[in-house]
Amino acid sequence: MTSGDFYDYFDLLDEQERETVLRVREFMADQVAPVADEAWTNARFPHHLIPELAKLDIAGLPYRGARSLLTGFVVLEMNRVDPSIGTFFGVHNGLAMGSIARLGSPEQRERWLPPMADLEKIGAFALTEPDGGSDVAAGLRTTARREGDTWVLNGAKRWIGNATFADLVVVWAKDEADGQVKGFVVEKGTPGFSATRIENKIALRTVQNADITLTNCLVPETNRLQGANTFRDTAAILRQTRGGVAWQAVGCMMGAYETALAYARERQQFGRPIAGFQLVQDLLVRMLGNVTCSLGMVVRLAQLQDAGVYKDEHSAMAKAFCTARMREAVGWGREIMGGNGIVLDYGMGRFVADSEAIYSYEGTREINSLIVGRAITGVGAFV
Amino acid sequence: MTSGDFYDYFDLLDEQERETVLRVREFMADQVAPVADEAWTNARFPHHLIPELAKLDIAGLPYRGARSLLTGFVVLEMNRVDPSIGTFFGVHNGLAMGSIARLGSPEQRERWLPPMADLEKIGAFALTEPDGGSDVAAGLRTTARREGDTWVLNGAKRWIGNATFADLVVVWAKDEADGQVKGFVVEKGTPGFSATRIENKIALRTVQNADITLTNCLVPETNRLQGANTFRDTAAILRQTRGGVAWQAVGCMMGAYETALAYARERQQFGRPIAGFQLVQDLLVRMLGNVTCSLGMVVRLAQLQDAGVYKDEHSAMAKAFCTARMREAVGWGREIMGGNGIVLDYGMGRFVADSEAIYSYEGTREINSLIVGRAITGVGAFV
Amino acid sequence: MTSGDFYDYFDLLDEQERETVLRVREFMADQVAPVADEAWTNARFPHHLIPELAKLDIAGLPYRGARSLLTGFVVLEMNRVDPSIGTFFGVHNGLAMGSIARLGSPEQRERWLPPMADLEKIGAFALTEPDGGSDVAAGLRTTARREGDTWVLNGAKRWIGNATFADLVVVWAKDEADGQVKGFVVEKGTPGFSATRIENKIALRTVQNADITLTNCLVPETNRLQGANTFRDTAAILRQTRGGVAWQAVGCMMGAYETALAYARERQQFGRPIAGFQLVQDLLVRMLGNVTCSLGMVVRLAQLQDAGVYKDEHSAMAKAFCTARMREAVGWGREIMGGNGIVLDYGMGRFVADSEAIYSYEGTREINSLIVGRAITGVGAFV
Amino acid sequence: MTSGDFYDYFDLLDEQERETVLRVREFMADQVAPVADEAWTNARFPHHLIPELAKLDIAGLPYRGARSLLTGFVVLEMNRVDPSIGTFFGVHNGLAMGSIARLGSPEQRERWLPPMADLEKIGAFALTEPDGGSDVAAGLRTTARREGDTWVLNGAKRWIGNATFADLVVVWAKDEADGQVKGFVVEKGTPGFSATRIENKIALRTVQNADITLTNCLVPETNRLQGANTFRDTAAILRQTRGGVAWQAVGCMMGAYETALAYARERQQFGRPIAGFQLVQDLLVRMLGNVTCSLGMVVRLAQLQDAGVYKDEHSAMAKAFCTARMREAVGWGREIMGGNGIVLDYGMGRFVADSEAIYSYEGTREINSLIVGRAITGVGAFV
Repeated sequence: MTSGDFYDYFDLLDEQERETVLRVREFMADQVAPVADEAWTNARFPHHLIPELAKLDIAGLPYRGARSLLTGFVVLEMNRVDPSIGTFFGVHNGLAMGSIARLGSPEQRERWLPPMADLEKIGAFALTEPDGGSDVAAGLRTTARREGDTWVLNGAKRWIGNATFADLVVVWAKDEADGQVKGFVVEKGTPGFSATRIENKIALRTVQNADITLTNCLVPETNRLQGANTFRDTAAILRQTRGGVAWQAVGCMMGAYETALAYARERQQFGRPIAGFQLVQDLLVRMLGNVTCSLGMVVRLAQLQDAGVYKDEHSAMAKAFCTARMREAVGWGREIMGGNGIVLDYGMGRFVADSEAIYSYEGTREINSLIVGRAITGVGAFV
Repeated sequence: MTSGDFYDYFDLLDEQERETVLRVREFMADQVAPVADEAWTNARFPHHLIPELAKLDIAGLPYRGARSLLTGFVVLEMNRVDPSIGTFFGVHNGLAMGSIARLGSPEQRERWLPPMADLEKIGAFALTEPDGGSDVAAGLRTTARREGDTWVLNGAKRWIGNATFADLVVVWAKDEADGQVKGFVVEKGTPGFSATRIENKIALRTVQNADITLTNCLVPETNRLQGANTFRDTAAILRQTRGGVAWQAVGCMMGAYETALAYARERQQFGRPIAGFQLVQDLLVRMLGNVTCSLGMVVRLAQLQDAGVYKDEHSAMAKAFCTARMREAVGWGREIMGGNGIVLDYGMGRFVADSEAIYSYEGTREINSLIVGRAITGVGAFV
Repeated sequence: MTSGDFYDYFDLLDEQERETVLRVREFMADQVAPVADEAWTNARFPHHLIPELAKLDIAGLPYRGARSLLTGFVVLEMNRVDPSIGTFFGVHNGLAMGSIARLGSPEQRERWLPPMADLEKIGAFALTEPDGGSDVAAGLRTTARREGDTWVLNGAKRWIGNATFADLVVVWAKDEADGQVKGFVVEKGTPGFSATRIENKIALRTVQNADITLTNCLVPETNRLQGANTFRDTAAILRQTRGGVAWQAVGCMMGAYETALAYARERQQFGRPIAGFQLVQDLLVRMLGNVTCSLGMVVRLAQLQDAGVYKDEHSAMAKAFCTARMREAVGWGREIMGGNGIVLDYGMGRFVADSEAIYSYEGTREINSLIVGRAITGVGAFV
Repeated sequence: MTSGDFYDYFDLLDEQERETVLRVREFMADQVAPVADEAWTNARFPHHLIPELAKLDIAGLPYRGARSLLTGFVVLEMNRVDPSIGTFFGVHNGLAMGSIARLGSPEQRERWLPPMADLEKIGAFALTEPDGGSDVAAGLRTTARREGDTWVLNGAKRWIGNATFADLVVVWAKDEADGQVKGFVVEKGTPGFSATRIENKIALRTVQNADITLTNCLVPETNRLQGANTFRDTAAILRQTRGGVAWQAVGCMMGAYETALAYARERQQFGRPIAGFQLVQDLLVRMLGNVTCSLGMVVRLAQLQDAGVYKDEHSAMAKAFCTARMREAVGWGREIMGGNGIVLDYGMGRFVADSEAIYSYEGTREINSLIVGRAITGVGAFV
């Protein structure tokens, strides 16, 4: 338990699960924390960490029978230190491996999951397009045309994390024949596939997002995810990963809270630690309130998930709610730290910046709210 | 499960507990709801409901081995319909019975708890004073002077719920001899005790709050709570009841949410239900987010309570956080209902008004935040 | 200048204008303040004040060449003490007299305005209908059918302030012949017109709102406002009065601020005035910030109004923005006052309750936002 | 008038003033906008712009009789495009030139102001210290010791804008003899003065802030500001510049609003511009409300300033209030732009990042609130 886990939710894990979480915590503290700022500043991914990360044996946990509660805490721990690494892992583990695990044939799972679990092959997930963010389903313009045992992909994708270096990119495209959205695993080096890094980001700078173009990119039928037949199947993946983003948000704000608390106890003004001023305590308590209620929400979400009664609107709620609380919380954290809050060295800057990306990806607050809204009112208000 | 329990927390209760909760729900819907507005408007307590309430057999549950989760849900159900009745019950069951159960001698518990459990005797709890709200401990001015086997009480109390008609009032006073705060059960009709109803309230109008004056009020030593020796003992009661107020807040906002949702699905504007407009859905989803995260928080609090690892700061956090979320939520509910939200008949008005009282009693948001703040920073910032 | 006018906007008035404002201030303090709580509690309109109010000679000021800045400050002063009286006056002066002044023929103005200016005849304004709040234009169902020189009105109106006792009610109805919305002055006692008081209000309880039914109510053509030919003409009235409601909001929150400040300087806790605690000062400063920025906004609105460059979206912005700031501010004021904030006697309760009505009437925040939104984006998003 | 000036405050300027403002607007659009992102990304100050900026003839305007309204609008225009350039200018013009203009002797003004007005000499202002942000007065540790006609300065300063390249740095130090805070103009290259650039900033990256150390730095008495005798004199400078920061905040949020509006009208989702969705319109209108009310506040502040009735608490209010509104507004702007809001190229990123610095510098929200709080309550609550 760390100081940010005020209601001791960690205690809900069993002993073996706790060990896994502590192993991740140690890795983040010892190996990621020291290099995180520099990687972020230079927008360079720390590839040297991948073998170390592999040793933790946490990729693919959800597909090996782990409880959602455990996989959630793993996500939390990563994002408590570095949301960029957390996002890298979320893309690889949740989106890419998740697509293959849930929608691949047994043969495909066997082919790709083991090397992905060992982080020998890194995954990406290409759904969003330049002109379709919120309107991802109906607006999808990338096309797939079957020619014998080969598919011809054409189109453009945007914001695709890990895509500059990924070995396997799960690309979603509309089958020209039946108009359904299908998934294709495009391997690195496939002709017709190109990825251009997105520059000038102010958030999650360590994450390598790319603009992808697909120009008559040929993919064998054996690389088409055999269980992905309509957009509903894609949506099932997002349902899982939106829950994961909610856990990310909790990790991010917990890291910010712990950083602000430590700073407030240390920083002296008017002859005493600022932690003793009412206005500073109030901000700390507001932060902790947001962390505590959000952690409670994702823990319950994990229970619903493990009980198999988990619906789109449940994860949409958690995503929208927890990321909104995170955004408030990191703002208060920055406020507590005054000017020092805008210098990376003090440990708050990345949380503030990164939270803006987390707030918007995998569905904006607006879209996720409207998903919940449709469920509770029975009326869609998207358009 | 009602529509406001989005993450199905009700499911955490066992079957017998659920039956109890459903019995309370039925009572509130069938017997309280029809008379609640009139009672509130006329600031008149519906005494005729007390025998019916007694039949539910829920008073004293916490002292008969019930899980905190169950007692919490009972509180929620009452406040989901009428926070005035919920407050009446909280004062009787949580504050008055709680003081006797935890701080009374076996003889005292035996003497008073059974008739209180049967609601044959109604309790009140007199701690707050006219000049001491937040500064309740150090500022306490009511005095007790022991003369042989009799105590002489002098002073004034304010805001004492139920006190106009209560049979037993637990009065807190400072022993002139040792300066410690002690508790006394003052029985109805004791000379020197007088209670004047507080008029002109705009919230919880059904609750009968009184200004109390104690003028050489004589109380036998046998009516002094034998386990209450310092203010710490009083504080232990507040720790429990603050958790109860957090459950009240959840009930109040859940009632408001369900009312707003039903209205939005019914009310037509521009030719369709307003539930179909983005701005209305957004308010509904924000309300539901607040309900869901707060319910998660009090459920966890109950678990900590039952595990015996529950501290002042845990309940202070829940009280401060959940009542703040409630206040936001009922405001959004009122907003959804437009002008109709200010007429009691539409079912939202009481929640809006009553939430102001719940927000402030048993410690303002400020005081509860500073209790948490002291715990997390190690520095008190009260003065 | 009072303490709530932090940037001394009062100074923008000329000497004669200031005298008028001070006269209103004196009237409100001396004659209204002492009776306001009782009138509110009993939901009884203080008719005895009308002759005194008449002596101030402020009804009809806008139609006698007064600057909008002056009429704004008059509104502010009334609402600083009692938003119910402010609303009564807004309905009479802004809505009813405004309609006649702007849309009446010279003969009509001559017939009705002088006795209304003397408050010998009191006006009301009947636009809103039971099923049409936000959707007032297209949704209007009350009909007018011309038969010779007589109009036959049928329909229902809701929320009509002053209507239980008004001498002249401006009723808006759709001409069955051309489908256009027209205005009719219905005089007290006209057969077919009936008004039923709306009971159980929790806000502006002193204001007498009515449900009106019109059943073959006959009105002579001479009572049809000759300048009201389409809903655009009605909208022009609302443009003016929405500005007035923004001034009401400023008055209401200024009154709340001044009350909270006085209380905080008086109320002692922990041995000193609570005004000396950081958390209380912060709330006071937030309140004052809201008052100051909102006063600046309505002052500028008045300047635009007087310069004749005033558009619907300008007043819609002021209405939406200032009422939202008011709602925040009165909430903070209530918070500062703890439990005492829910008892009318402490002077905060009415502001808190009344602000809910002001927030919603003359267009909810949502509708006024969408009016601004249409103006700035060029796209309507009402439906 | 631009679209962000909804209530046409620009119209309050006279024709000549408007020309000046338009000249600044043109400069910012034509010369700054094209290079702003690159300068920010690389944390490199665009020195080549200084001669062009000099041609605008706006440095020193406040000391040449210009109305505060004009100088305010100049600040607004700069920050509407680039808060980094706005901050550079604020440090040079407001803090450094302001100190010399108000506290220098006639000879000193004559010596330094003309080349500073021509931007031939650039100024900086060194008050804040590593351990003293909010507690700037009592906590000041930099010392000055007079030895004959020379002063010996020792100490450290932090966050000093422009200091890596400034020609003249106004340094504040405590006279060891009388304990009073005095001001010294330290010229570039003075031995014992060293400035180290602060790296790893996430906001206002174009601004060159430095950590300064003074080690037996010798300054002649002729470089001591002759009118600066106590901290009160320093505070008088901050009073002016805090007003300037409020104008910066208005410029920054206006730029963000205009950017978001343009994007929303362009960006298509679900087959139409997102500007047509209620949730997007609502965010735009909230942004515009914040811009409009804040602009009104600083306009009034300028009037109070020009009337000479301007107090510390007036500018503290504007600084605290407008920067808080800015922070909300840029957050909404980012939200509207989804993922594209985190890429500099879309024009929103810098506003979001930079607003964090503006929010904290020249007194945090907390400190400025407590300055207002002291004024309105009569009680200081700083410690």
